[in-house]
Amino acid sequence: MKDFIKVIKIGGAIAEDENQLEDFLKDFAVIKGYKILVHGGGIIATKLAERLGIKPKMIEGRRVTDKGMMDIATMVYAGLVNKKIVAALQSINVNAIGLTGADLNLVHSVKRNPVPIDYGWVGDIDSIKASWIRAFLEQGVVPVFAPITHDGKGNLLNTNADSVASKLASKMADKDEVELILCFDQPGVMKEGKVISTIKAESFEQLKQEKVISGGMIPKLQMGFKAIENGVTSVILKSADSLDDEQKGTRLVA
Amino acid sequence: MKDFIKVIKIGGAIAEDENQLEDFLKDFAVIKGYKILVHGGGIIATKLAERLGIKPKMIEGRRVTDKGMMDIATMVYAGLVNKKIVAALQSINVNAIGLTGADLNLVHSVKRNPVPIDYGWVGDIDSIKASWIRAFLEQGVVPVFAPITHDGKGNLLNTNADSVASKLASKMADKDEVELILCFDQPGVMKEGKVISTIKAESFEQLKQEKVISGGMIPKLQMGFKAIENGVTSVILKSADSLDDEQKGTRLVA
Repeated sequence: MKDFIKVIKIGGAIAEDENQLEDFLKDFAVIKGYKILVHGGGIIATKLAERLGIKPKMIEGRRVTDKGMMDIATMVYAGLVNKKIVAALQSINVNAIGLTGADLNLVHSVKRNPVPIDYGWVGDIDSIKASWIRAFLEQGVVPVFAPITHDGKGNLLNTNADSVASKLASKMADKDEVELILCFDQPGVMKEGKVISTIKAESFEQLKQEKVISGGMIPKLQMGFKAIENGVTSVILKSADSLDDEQKGTRLVA
Repeated sequence: MKDFIKVIKIGGAIAEDENQLEDFLKDFAVIKGYKILVHGGGIIATKLAERLGIKPKMIEGRRVTDKGMMDIATMVYAGLVNKKIVAALQSINVNAIGLTGADLNLVHSVKRNPVPIDYGWVGDIDSIKASWIRAFLEQGVVPVFAPITHDGKGNLLNTNADSVASKLASKMADKDEVELILCFDQPGVMKEGKVISTIKAESFEQLKQEKVISGGMIPKLQMGFKAIENGVTSVILKSADSLDDEQKGTRLVA
């Protein structure tokens, strides 16, 4: 029989705000059944870099992860944010374990090709080991993933948290029924001030042309539709504060 | 049948030096059988605090862990140092998992009584859950512990790495045969320029009076002898670079 797994991703803004995070984790704690949490932490990392006088290097609007930024990402994502979430979950009786892709070799990545643009220590996921993740879930343990992976050559790699969540969801969908929830700073994909309740893959192009979907939303939806192609049952984009309301958000459908 | 487990602790100095760490991890990798690594990271944390303009607060020569220092400790120990070690071990085919006491509620601590001296977010270990640690070992996984624990109320606590190692060793000794190796910056306990090969519990007081053992060595040996009282088979104090030479170092005996 298939198990049902929810993979939920939260961004850096919520991880930074202690009250918001606490509220979110309370809602997360009461979700029944198997669940996996993936978090970002970019805002905190940027602030720490500023305090350390490290200027973010940008190429065409995208951040370059040099050695110094990679250390900061590792400290903030795998250390500060990840362990605060784990300790907070333990305090409300959720037996969480904090993980990066290096731990148990769970998420293996390839350092992005430096040609034509060298983004530095950025990794694109090429394989996920599901057996330990499944073992944790079966024992009532909740995996909490930081968006750090490794290349198997000793290098940690900065990896997009949406990508970690959607690849994890896709992998688990090999055997189980999976719902992917990508939380972001909007109640859903908005059109004329209202949340679009469902978006079909076939209307994605149209919505891009109408500029309803633009900027950072484009890769988010691309990953969402990719997850559906890979067998994920449903993908929902919503605000973290409406986690407990199943009616809210935008649902991507095949 | 009893299993044989080695619990090995390394300090912050070795974690900071990439070449030294690489050499150590190669020696660590070839150790056969069950093994657990515990690491410090104090030197890197102190440097990061300096770069951030945070002055270490000291009372009677001991550092106070205020909120800012606790965040730094979490970033450096649980993030940077822990995940670098895990990624390095994965690259030499050791299936490591990085852990703090909050993960899986493995190491629970009590915040130290603020009376008479308030050391801040410092924890004294009161319980260890061995079942997951044993499950990892049985599956060929090497647990790598950062010296961060939690109080079950959502707070992470800074915890002495020697203490984490000796309490882990003591706990595992309930069922298994355990060797505890505390690596430090000397080839062993020194007397007149030579390594003392064995120290009996009964001669500990004498060596303290002779000032052979002084300063930070006193709590280290106290913890070592405590581990032996708790059933740990042998406790060895040695330099990290002689891990592969079983003859080296100082052995504590009952």
